[in-house]
Amino acid sequence: MKEHMAQKSLYTRAAESQMVDFTMKLTTESMLNLMLSIAGEDAQRNGFGVDVLTPVNRTWVLSRLSLEIDSRPEQYSQFDIQTWVSDNNRLISTRNFEASQQGKVIARAVSQWCMLDFEKRVPVSLQEIMPQMEPFVVDAASPCDPPRKLRPVEGEVYATHKVSYSDIDFNSHMNTMRYVMLIMDCLPLEFFREDRPHRLDIHFLHECLYGQELSIAYNQLEGVSQFEIRNAEGSVACRAQIEWK
Amino acid sequence: MKEHMAQKSLYTRAAESQMVDFTMKLTTESMLNLMLSIAGEDAQRNGFGVDVLTPVNRTWVLSRLSLEIDSRPEQYSQFDIQTWVSDNNRLISTRNFEASQQGKVIARAVSQWCMLDFEKRVPVSLQEIMPQMEPFVVDAASPCDPPRKLRPVEGEVYATHKVSYSDIDFNSHMNTMRYVMLIMDCLPLEFFREDRPHRLDIHFLHECLYGQELSIAYNQLEGVSQFEIRNAEGSVACRAQIEWK
Repeated sequence: MKEHMAQKSLYTRAAESQMVDFTMKLTTESMLNLMLSIAGEDAQRNGFGVDVLTPVNRTWVLSRLSLEIDSRPEQYSQFDIQTWVSDNNRLISTRNFEASQQGKVIARAVSQWCMLDFEKRVPVSLQEIMPQMEPFVVDAASPCDPPRKLRPVEGEVYATHKVSYSDIDFNSHMNTMRYVMLIMDCLPLEFFREDRPHRLDIHFLHECLYGQELSIAYNQLEGVSQFEIRNAEGSVACRAQIEWK
Repeated sequence: MKEHMAQKSLYTRAAESQMVDFTMKLTTESMLNLMLSIAGEDAQRNGFGVDVLTPVNRTWVLSRLSLEIDSRPEQYSQFDIQTWVSDNNRLISTRNFEASQQGKVIARAVSQWCMLDFEKRVPVSLQEIMPQMEPFVVDAASPCDPPRKLRPVEGEVYATHKVSYSDIDFNSHMNTMRYVMLIMDCLPLEFFREDRPHRLDIHFLHECLYGQELSIAYNQLEGVSQFEIRNAEGSVACRAQIEWK
């Protein structure tokens, strides 16, 4: 018998000045950053965060994500983000997010995480952490479709980027947010002027390391933007798609 | 007779996860960002912020800055930033900053601001705003040397950058922080590993606009890094220097 019924956790955040774009609204990148930082905080609070995993040579790695944004909050405005783990299978833990402002849902996300052996850089079974996680799995469905399957992108190389000091985390890997920044920077400004609802699907396939020369392929279809970030050896590091509603 | 003696203002901030580098310490860019955002907040609170200036076709523009950092705060740690305006002449307002942590001064900065005619993009006399500002000028010296004179940089072009979506503010100009990011990204990681005390001097000469192709010249001397950001026409947009102690 469970000791308690697990509940969604609620966090309140604000669209601070460094999180908005030229329209003075929260960027998609910043919304994702807030969600991921809440994920870290929530996991830590519940006893399965990186503070517990690091000493046993484990870490969480974001594998796939879907993020739907209906409207982006105005600079300085507050909004709520609920988060909950809905499902764990042998290799993937699913964490969900729902953002709302003044009682209206404005964004939803589904993130899929692997647990990685820190030294060997290979996924390990979630069985190890199940006892700690199980009491916090919430019996509530994901708020939107899980990350879609993304096919190889045929688009031309739109930009290149050398992974630099400001891109990397403590592990010398490119920060998750930078992938989103690199793809968003391919798009014409017109895509952002009107606060169009959109859905981002993103797969992380290979880590990008300090000093690597990346190329970003971009293909614009009717209502769909496709991206592929490749390293100098031609390996796909990340594949992403944005559907504009 | 003054109605009151103006005081330094005190703000408390924390080194949040998106503000640290791979050493898990606050970046120089983020320290500057916090100081500039506090400057905006403090000016607004005292009645001479952009909220008052914008309706009369004026805005504040950062012209030169010196920033000395003795040590960078650890991730999540809190610190205080004091700020005060020490001096206004006809065209330049000087705002100072002093950051401290656990009673020890860790950073100092002197910023020099112009008031710009928003449409004509030319500096205007600060006389217009003196009545509002004068009661808030604090009779206290700047905490470090004002911005130094910087000579043209002979260094080779180290990197290029196209001004993109994520770089620009509401005015389609490149954000101040991006200049600092671009120069920091030229430096080898070794410069950051040991939390070396350093002093940054930076001059903003021309605004960088969306779509412009920038080149960053970098010249490394003994203990001194010099930078020049130029636009496609070869005009110098920004000149900067870091002295490593």
